[in-house]
Amino acid sequence: MRKIDVCLSPDLIELYNLSGKVVVVVDILRATSCMTTGIAHGVNSIKPVATLAECQELQFKGYTAAAERNGKKVDGFDLGNSPFDYMDEELRGKDIAVTTTNGTLAITKSMDAEQVIIGSFLNFSAIINYLKRIKHDVVVHCAGWKGKVNMEDSLYAGAVVDALNGQMDYACDAPKIVHSLYLQAKGNMLDFMQNSSHAKRLTKLSIQRDFEYCLKFDEFKNIPVLKGDHLMKMGISDMLI
Amino acid sequence: MRKIDVCLSPDLIELYNLSGKVVVVVDILRATSCMTTGIAHGVNSIKPVATLAECQELQFKGYTAAAERNGKKVDGFDLGNSPFDYMDEELRGKDIAVTTTNGTLAITKSMDAEQVIIGSFLNFSAIINYLKRIKHDVVVHCAGWKGKVNMEDSLYAGAVVDALNGQMDYACDAPKIVHSLYLQAKGNMLDFMQNSSHAKRLTKLSIQRDFEYCLKFDEFKNIPVLKGDHLMKMGISDMLI
Repeated sequence: MRKIDVCLSPDLIELYNLSGKVVVVVDILRATSCMTTGIAHGVNSIKPVATLAECQELQFKGYTAAAERNGKKVDGFDLGNSPFDYMDEELRGKDIAVTTTNGTLAITKSMDAEQVIIGSFLNFSAIINYLKRIKHDVVVHCAGWKGKVNMEDSLYAGAVVDALNGQMDYACDAPKIVHSLYLQAKGNMLDFMQNSSHAKRLTKLSIQRDFEYCLKFDEFKNIPVLKGDHLMKMGISDMLI
Repeated sequence: MRKIDVCLSPDLIELYNLSGKVVVVVDILRATSCMTTGIAHGVNSIKPVATLAECQELQFKGYTAAAERNGKKVDGFDLGNSPFDYMDEELRGKDIAVTTTNGTLAITKSMDAEQVIIGSFLNFSAIINYLKRIKHDVVVHCAGWKGKVNMEDSLYAGAVVDALNGQMDYACDAPKIVHSLYLQAKGNMLDFMQNSSHAKRLTKLSIQRDFEYCLKFDEFKNIPVLKGDHLMKMGISDMLI
């Protein structure tokens, strides 16, 4: 049987052998929710970069530049890290460069994988259907918060493990831990997450609207996939067999 | 209110500020269960060391030497990592040097704390009563398995969070995650843990007896505490106020 594993923090990803595997990177609040939203709204490509300097350099080269640090948009950039920023009609066909506190790091640290895809609740069933179809082992890579584990990404990982239950073996204890967490939370996920530390940080920043949006299931059917160093909408030719 | 935090792996402990805090190190299967058992059976001191070479050097200097790697006793050492090894009458008053795959690393990485104490289910209530009495913030430091999170240490952390519920705030999301896990597992903890990856490793090694023993609550009332670089039985003068 195929295996599913969960990495709760980018600071632990070096312990995982990603070779030949499909990695689902998740940063529910809010990087991967933004990426899913942007690609669904016709953005051509999204290039994740580690530093503000790299992001600014790409801005000079014509990219739309998105930068967030500690939950806030950085001055001088075009977009922040709200999914509503990514719905703008003017972004259709554009190339975006993005740097965020956690999510972009999780992506760049996943590059040894056979394929890196972007997960969020917004494209949940699309991800699950794809994972059911392929033959590869899977690692859900949670972006966390500055290296620490967080509630929302752990819950997402648990939801993925739950949806694939019976079809994949746990590769270590982390999938079982997040699965158990999800089973406890799924009836009242909003309440459960509203007490999380990052939700509290976001509430302080008055972005409750983002928070509720990022918890919606299945708004979109697309999967952003990493091609070279850009995320693009997965097409038929990108699908593993 | 005081804060409780949980670090799920020694590979994440650098993210935690341990200064002024009490750290409970836990490696249920089996290092901290062994340490609790040994100190309760009259062992004078236990010195955790990182390498087999250091452990052997101390053996030459007269220490009783205990060494485990990948779940097995290492040839040439006096003791392995079974709690039953630590019940021997002949160990009374002796000094032990110990090196294990995970537990000793978690201890040596906790040394910035105000105080490091050794937790296990075997001395659960003693630990909880002590933590209730002091004024310090608390970090439960799970030894995990080679850097990855594991079930049994996460469950122990969840049990500690549960026992202190209402008296301490969560410092981040990890305490809430393990608390939720524990609430799901506590009715059938043995079943829950028997499916864990480390339990499976131990079962392969025919040490089911150790596994059942390490899940017993409150066999002992003592708390091993780190004094300099040795663990010793906590006395009244060691108690923080």
